[in-house]
Amino acid sequence: MQIAKVCGTVVSTCKEPSLRGVKFLLVQFLDRDGELLPQYEVAGDTVGAGVDEWVLISRGSAARQVGESDKRPIDAMVVGIIDTVSVDSHILYSKKDQYR
Amino acid sequence: MQIAKVCGTVVSTCKEPSLRGVKFLLVQFLDRDGELLPQYEVAGDTVGAGVDEWVLISRGSAARQVGESDKRPIDAMVVGIIDTVSVDSHILYSKKDQYR
Amino acid sequence: MQIAKVCGTVVSTCKEPSLRGVKFLLVQFLDRDGELLPQYEVAGDTVGAGVDEWVLISRGSAARQVGESDKRPIDAMVVGIIDTVSVDSHILYSKKDQYR
Amino acid sequence: MQIAKVCGTVVSTCKEPSLRGVKFLLVQFLDRDGELLPQYEVAGDTVGAGVDEWVLISRGSAARQVGESDKRPIDAMVVGIIDTVSVDSHILYSKKDQYR
Amino acid sequence: MQIAKVCGTVVSTCKEPSLRGVKFLLVQFLDRDGELLPQYEVAGDTVGAGVDEWVLISRGSAARQVGESDKRPIDAMVVGIIDTVSVDSHILYSKKDQYR
Repeated sequence: MQIAKVCGTVVSTCKEPSLRGVKFLLVQFLDRDGELLPQYEVAGDTVGAGVDEWVLISRGSAARQVGESDKRPIDAMVVGIIDTVSVDSHILYSKKDQYR
Repeated sequence: MQIAKVCGTVVSTCKEPSLRGVKFLLVQFLDRDGELLPQYEVAGDTVGAGVDEWVLISRGSAARQVGESDKRPIDAMVVGIIDTVSVDSHILYSKKDQYR
Repeated sequence: MQIAKVCGTVVSTCKEPSLRGVKFLLVQFLDRDGELLPQYEVAGDTVGAGVDEWVLISRGSAARQVGESDKRPIDAMVVGIIDTVSVDSHILYSKKDQYR
Repeated sequence: MQIAKVCGTVVSTCKEPSLRGVKFLLVQFLDRDGELLPQYEVAGDTVGAGVDEWVLISRGSAARQVGESDKRPIDAMVVGIIDTVSVDSHILYSKKDQYR
Repeated sequence: MQIAKVCGTVVSTCKEPSLRGVKFLLVQFLDRDGELLPQYEVAGDTVGAGVDEWVLISRGSAARQVGESDKRPIDAMVVGIIDTVSVDSHILYSKKDQYR
C-alpha cells in the first residue's frame, strides 16, 4: 500500500453501471518524509475519508477485494484512514495532532 | 484510476478475435494540475467518450470487469466521463465549461 | 494497451514447458508522437506481426486472455497489428503508407 | 520480489474490516548495492520482521497468496526475512553480521 | 517479459511456508542494447539458470502460472534461458558465444 493525502473529489455521471454509488476521492501520494509527490490516484472510498486525512491506498486487483462484489472496474481504493506513521523511531504523522 | 484526456483513436483490423467491436481511444494522462503528461494509454471505450473529454481510466485486471465477458486481452478501459474535478477546494475542471 | 514497434525476436529453448510453441517478439514502445522510447517488452505473438509493424501490446493478466489456455507465465502479448493511429485530428501512422 | 529494509510501522484503526489484525510495516526498497531508495511500501507482515531487517516484498495479487484468505485488499506483503544476498560472487548482506 | 542477467542469489530461511524449496535468483534487467540497468528483481527459478546467463523474467500474476500450484506469494519468475536475441537484423546476444 502507499500513503496518500486526500486532496479532492471526482464526479462522473456517465460511467460503468457497476460504479454507481462509488465515491471517488483524488488522493496524492506522499514520500517517506511525508512530503507530497506529484503522483495521484482517483480511488474509491468506503471508509469515509475526509480532505487532508492521510490514508492507505491499495492498487491493482487488491482494490476489488472490498465490499460484496469484486466485479467492478476499480484499480485503486482507500482501505484505511491512518492514525500514526512511525519511521526510524520517531512519529512522522499522528492524526490526533490535527493533521501534520 | 487516472485522469486522462481523449486525444485520438487507434484502428486495428488484424487482432485477437475477442477484441472485435471494441473501440480503442488514445488517451493522454493529466497531472494533478490538469496539464498533459507524456504518458498515454490505448483504452477500450464502452461509455462513448469523445475527443477532448476528460475521462477516468482503469488499468490492469480492473479493465476486464466491464461488459459480459472478462476473457479479453484488454489492460485499460475508459470507465467514466468526468463531470467535475475538485482539488484543494477549487474546481479544477468542469465539463459544463466547454472543456477547460 | 501501449503502442510498440516490432524490432526483433528472442529465442529460448530451455523454458517453462507451457511456453513451447510461443513466438517471442522484441517490441519497443513508442511515445505519443510515434518516436521510439527506450522501454521494450518481450511479447508473445499470435497475430503474426512482422518487423517494423506497429502493434498493440497488452500487459499483465490481460496477456493471458488469449488462446485456449490462460495457465502460461506470459505477461505481455501482441494483441493487434495497428492500421492507423489518429491524434489531434491528424493521422500519426498509417500501415498503408509503408510504415512511417 | 524486491529487497527492502524495515524502517517503521503504520497504524490504522478505521479500515476495511478484512484488514483487522494485519500488522503494517513501512519498508524502504534497496538498490542492488544495498543502498536505500526513496521508494517505499506499506506491507502486511506475517513472518515477524523487525526494524532494520532486510526482507523480501511481494506486490500485486501475489501479496494475497498468504494465509487462509485471499479476499483482502492488500497489495504488498513481507514474504521472507533475508539471511544473505550474494551478488557477483561476494556477500552483499548477511543477517548474522548484525545488519550491514 | 523482460530480459535480465543472473547476477546473484538470495537466501531466506524465515519465510512464507509455501515458498519452501523455491530458489531465488537476483537478476538485473538489461536495456535493449544489452546494457545492465539499475533495476533488479528477486525471481524464483525452476528452469535452472546460472550466473551470467540471460533469462526471460515474467512478473505479476504470470509468475504464478508455473508448476503445480499458483497459491504462492511470488511476483517474478525466470521462465526461460535465452539462446539468442536479434534486434534490427543483427544478433545482440548468443548464448553459444560464451555470454557476450
